[in-house]
Amino acid sequence: MLKKVLLFAFAGFAALAVGILIGHFGIGKGSSAPSWMSELSRDVDETFIQEFIAEVDNMKIQENLRELTRVPHMATTAGDEATVQYMLKRWRDKDTGLDAAWREDYRIYLSFPDKDTPNTVSVVNTSGSVLYAAQDKEKAYLLKQDDPEVVQPYAAYGPAGHVEGKLVYANQGKVSDYETLNATLSLNGTIAIVRYGGAGRADKAINAAPFGVVGVLVYTDPYDINDGLMSDENETYPHSWYLPPSGVERGSYKNDFGDPLTPYLAAKNGTYRIPVEDLTDVPPIPIQPIGFEDARALICELGGSAAPAGWQGSFPCTYNFGGPGFAGGSHFRDSDVKLDVYNRGELRDSANVMGVIRGSVEPDRYVIYGNHRDSWVHGAIDPSSGTAVMLEITRVLGQKVKAGQWRPRRTLIFGSWGAEEFGLIGSTEYAEEYASKLSQRTVAYMNVDISVFANATLRASGSPTVQNVIFTASKQVNIPGSDSVSVYDNWIRYSNRTSTAYGNIPNVGYMTGAGSDYASFVHYLGITSLDLSYTYDRSKTRARIYPAYHTAYDTFDYASRYIDPGFTSHQTVARTAGNVLLRLADSLLLPFNCSDYAETLEQYLAAAVDAFEAQLQANGVSMEPLKEAVKSFRMAATSLDQDIRASDLANETPLRSRMINDQLMLLDRAFLDPLAFPNKYGYRHVIWASGSSGVPTFPGVADAVEKEDWAQAHKHLSIVTQAISGAARTLAETHR
Amino acid sequence: MLKKVLLFAFAGFAALAVGILIGHFGIGKGSSAPSWMSELSRDVDETFIQEFIAEVDNMKIQENLRELTRVPHMATTAGDEATVQYMLKRWRDKDTGLDAAWREDYRIYLSFPDKDTPNTVSVVNTSGSVLYAAQDKEKAYLLKQDDPEVVQPYAAYGPAGHVEGKLVYANQGKVSDYETLNATLSLNGTIAIVRYGGAGRADKAINAAPFGVVGVLVYTDPYDINDGLMSDENETYPHSWYLPPSGVERGSYKNDFGDPLTPYLAAKNGTYRIPVEDLTDVPPIPIQPIGFEDARALICELGGSAAPAGWQGSFPCTYNFGGPGFAGGSHFRDSDVKLDVYNRGELRDSANVMGVIRGSVEPDRYVIYGNHRDSWVHGAIDPSSGTAVMLEITRVLGQKVKAGQWRPRRTLIFGSWGAEEFGLIGSTEYAEEYASKLSQRTVAYMNVDISVFANATLRASGSPTVQNVIFTASKQVNIPGSDSVSVYDNWIRYSNRTSTAYGNIPNVGYMTGAGSDYASFVHYLGITSLDLSYTYDRSKTRARIYPAYHTAYDTFDYASRYIDPGFTSHQTVARTAGNVLLRLADSLLLPFNCSDYAETLEQYLAAAVDAFEAQLQANGVSMEPLKEAVKSFRMAATSLDQDIRASDLANETPLRSRMINDQLMLLDRAFLDPLAFPNKYGYRHVIWASGSSGVPTFPGVADAVEKEDWAQAHKHLSIVTQAISGAARTLAETHR
Repeated sequence: MLKKVLLFAFAGFAALAVGILIGHFGIGKGSSAPSWMSELSRDVDETFIQEFIAEVDNMKIQENLRELTRVPHMATTAGDEATVQYMLKRWRDKDTGLDAAWREDYRIYLSFPDKDTPNTVSVVNTSGSVLYAAQDKEKAYLLKQDDPEVVQPYAAYGPAGHVEGKLVYANQGKVSDYETLNATLSLNGTIAIVRYGGAGRADKAINAAPFGVVGVLVYTDPYDINDGLMSDENETYPHSWYLPPSGVERGSYKNDFGDPLTPYLAAKNGTYRIPVEDLTDVPPIPIQPIGFEDARALICELGGSAAPAGWQGSFPCTYNFGGPGFAGGSHFRDSDVKLDVYNRGELRDSANVMGVIRGSVEPDRYVIYGNHRDSWVHGAIDPSSGTAVMLEITRVLGQKVKAGQWRPRRTLIFGSWGAEEFGLIGSTEYAEEYASKLSQRTVAYMNVDISVFANATLRASGSPTVQNVIFTASKQVNIPGSDSVSVYDNWIRYSNRTSTAYGNIPNVGYMTGAGSDYASFVHYLGITSLDLSYTYDRSKTRARIYPAYHTAYDTFDYASRYIDPGFTSHQTVARTAGNVLLRLADSLLLPFNCSDYAETLEQYLAAAVDAFEAQLQANGVSMEPLKEAVKSFRMAATSLDQDIRASDLANETPLRSRMINDQLMLLDRAFLDPLAFPNKYGYRHVIWASGSSGVPTFPGVADAVEKEDWAQAHKHLSIVTQAISGAARTLAETHR
Repeated sequence: MLKKVLLFAFAGFAALAVGILIGHFGIGKGSSAPSWMSELSRDVDETFIQEFIAEVDNMKIQENLRELTRVPHMATTAGDEATVQYMLKRWRDKDTGLDAAWREDYRIYLSFPDKDTPNTVSVVNTSGSVLYAAQDKEKAYLLKQDDPEVVQPYAAYGPAGHVEGKLVYANQGKVSDYETLNATLSLNGTIAIVRYGGAGRADKAINAAPFGVVGVLVYTDPYDINDGLMSDENETYPHSWYLPPSGVERGSYKNDFGDPLTPYLAAKNGTYRIPVEDLTDVPPIPIQPIGFEDARALICELGGSAAPAGWQGSFPCTYNFGGPGFAGGSHFRDSDVKLDVYNRGELRDSANVMGVIRGSVEPDRYVIYGNHRDSWVHGAIDPSSGTAVMLEITRVLGQKVKAGQWRPRRTLIFGSWGAEEFGLIGSTEYAEEYASKLSQRTVAYMNVDISVFANATLRASGSPTVQNVIFTASKQVNIPGSDSVSVYDNWIRYSNRTSTAYGNIPNVGYMTGAGSDYASFVHYLGITSLDLSYTYDRSKTRARIYPAYHTAYDTFDYASRYIDPGFTSHQTVARTAGNVLLRLADSLLLPFNCSDYAETLEQYLAAAVDAFEAQLQANGVSMEPLKEAVKSFRMAATSLDQDIRASDLANETPLRSRMINDQLMLLDRAFLDPLAFPNKYGYRHVIWASGSSGVPTFPGVADAVEKEDWAQAHKHLSIVTQAISGAARTLAETHR
């Protein structure tokens, strides 16, 4: 009986168990959770981020750089095309490539010197004999610098022309510099020599022309770039990172970004082009950059009175204004400086190389990471240090994708931009062509151009919303050679500020300029952007930038010997930038903090009140509406932050995180006003637009106050008030 | 044994059953479907739509209208404030109101006549005696027309001034009319009388001033409004819908929309205002509208040669040009016309009344329904016929919400706009203030201003994407008095076209003008918009609009006797508009058809090729890029349509429908170019912007070709090509 009972019981249990199994697995619940549920609520994977950090390989970055810098790769040259092919090869690699990669060409207006007839700068006496001729190329210390593809130093977009006149020294070529000079002598018919810095390249000539100056020479003073050092026998490259005497900074002498002939339109074959003669943002008179060795030979012979202390540089002579012209005691006395420029404009095809990793959950949300590919010469630091980092990031991520181990929540887009050196052209044409799609869908744009200026510390700039994610990432990455000091801890020692919310924190700069390819994204499209690099210990040098910048000395040799031996700073940047990228791409809730935007607006407001309120009030203009707007933004941000904290997004409807993310994604868009700055090409962001005033505040207001144009100041106060109130409203889900 | 076996078997089955039950219900699946799943995939409820249609009550609309038209309610008057309070009361009703309702005030610049010193128009002889004085108010047939709050007919924004001169007849006041006149006589120092139509109100004066004309009179010719009828003894109101002899159309004589002093800025208290003297879109010379009785007394006395046939109207005399001045045989001979205008501008507070029903699933997606509230006098048809309909729609829906029976998927926003009659001011200030939020979140804007012009047929205009939802709704609603003829079937008989996709269908007009409050939504914000009304049988009348338009005769009496006795056409509009509204608010997939946009673009292209290609080619401008762009749009639309058809949105991830809906919602946004039309205030939509050319095609291109400005034509071709290619790209989910 016991047996029977046991059998009975066993059979009963078995039946029960089978039933449970059938019930659990066999019957589809009318409302069983669909398979996509867990995928939708997946958040960033910290283990994966650690894996990523571990796999970023400094030696691979070094090899990327070596490959990228084999030949000069100025935009649209054969060397540039070789890098296009290299990028495509890498991004199409079957084991480490992306989902897709392709090129996009634009037909853009560039400017080049004449290979057969170099531009010349000479001193000619009254009978026309040449007493002195500036070097028309940089001295070769390595074979690379003798490559026939090394472009002669020139001022891109400077006009061709042949001018001659008495030389004057005009400091940095600012309007105030020419005014100072003009107060003591007539500039009519003169050639001005100016040093880099203080004013934009093109402005040095644009500012000069109204004073009657007929030509401009530009050089880099050793004071500004070499901490005063000048000798290539033991001081400058190849003995150090400093600029050799014949080194010349090339550059674009055009103010506005993008293809100059197709403003606001992508430069395709059939696109309308404005006539070249209508360009107003380029030098109206011939201009040519020269090395400091030549500059010294000219400046130290100048006559006239001594220039002010602030104009003096490192040459062992007094910098005089010029008589105009050379001193009576000089072997150049009575001689002119003659400038022959043979630059010419050309329409050329320039390629962006694009690559994509498709997002799994939100394929229509884009995180864009980019850097330009073109250089002036070999461009080891500018831009290949960034490209080498980008390629290492895509190698690690591409490998994971190809192995089926990972796919981002959102789509990752990588851009290798063309023709940045001529004025951010590739990225701008891309932004113009894809404007509607990008502005609707882009979460963030991350730019890493020169990844390592120097190996002291991280440098970051960006929208206040991304400050926090940069901090998070930089706390997880250690500095080169340390197992314990984080990038964050190191950074805060070099650059910090006091935040009302957090106390002492590293300083993330504002994106108020157009120094690299982020310009079109942040200023034109209002896309939340950030820019990362490794940079100097400012207590060690006052060099305005790394000394080989835009010269023939910016080679692999230079980078690996003087900028980042071992490429560990490159590795650190790749780890930090990749970490930020993964958080932007994979986080369920975008890692954007809108309250940090409120803090910036409050700082802007405080600066504006300090600097302008008294004057504005005296002229009948009230700042109260702006104060109210900033207050409303703070309240809206606090409220959204509370909502987020009270949420359990992984378990709420997938639309809830999408809604909040949309609010965060579109926040910077709300600051755009396409009509706010009619005279500033491509600037629409009323917080970050460039301004001429030195006050770190709302640029439209500051500029108007500086001009004492009270109507304009009032108008800009209203513009920024409306933008901030509007942005505050976008932080709330409801209508009102 | 059998019993035991049975018992055993039974126990076994029971255990199995219990097991199944436990397994099915007792064990939480790691991933059981959350409660919000079915809510997220809920689609539009056809039963609810039928309920809505059944509950729309014509008698309630009649009562709404009676209430709304008790007193004149010109913008910012006490009568206007009474309607503000009425709207708030209705929308805050505890049983039939909305979730929330509130007012939003703007401080705007309006223009009024002087109550104490009416504007006058008179004929004065050489000794200064008044031979004739035009009526300064309309004749009262009802007490209502004698209400002291009936504003004197005037030209809002016309300047004050006192001018006198010989009269000339200038037809419609177009530039070509003044040119014709000017070819036969000197216009210097003359007063021109012109009829409504052909040119905008302000343009009649703006066009005149350069010819030396010093003042303008405007009237409505019985030919244009009354099918020639003129006598109030048996022909016009109160005997019919026709305009009585003393009736005068008031209106805004300002071209641009929005508050004139705060372009692109919401007119708040502290907002920057441009100086009044900087306004360029208003009459530069005094101008005054008069009734046709007075116009006849003047025109029929004119001397000079006979005007062309096209200039003749219904008066029983030949319309002469004027000598200038009156005929030698006239009792007015040698006399001047004298015009004394006392209008003045004032800053006034005007209210929008806003109401909201919060969306359940996508609260951050807005469907906006609006109409203005202000009238010129009692405004029974314009705008209260629309407001009465809106209130009936909100009554039915509000009741469902308050009873907990329904809540829309998306948020519904209702706007009762202020100061439309002065130039769409309330809606424009709202669009400017909320621009960022509205452009990020608004699915569609629906406008029903005058809901019933006449009771013949539906009239609709809108973005091509909404054609289909209007058709769906109009097929479900029957025309007044019929159980079988749908609004759609009736409509197609009155107005139709041949579609490449559908064959013969009703004609949905383009939104190329700024005739009502949709202007800021479609032109400035690029929000998909539509406008609905009931209108004329054009075979029965050539009246350019219903004859009491903007006069003191537009009363409840007029509406209920001559426009829509029984209010069944109002009911039909409410049913149709409400049906569209519910589909926009509740559909899982937005009822937008992007392929219908492709058809419109193809039509535009064909028209442009027909009209312009030969000329453009002859001037070196190719249309090929535009053709490619339109082709790419068609392909993208076809592809999205296929994706949608292949989808099972109710069972796919909620993000999938949100992604597709975002693409559809933002499609019109992709056609915005804020810099395309620098001289057209508020126009940014490159497809729908107003154009001066008669060709139904891309306005920027057409206008440039008309001026034979080939560079400008090329530029606009590039602008529209880029916009269309960009829009095509937004239809794809992936990046490339």
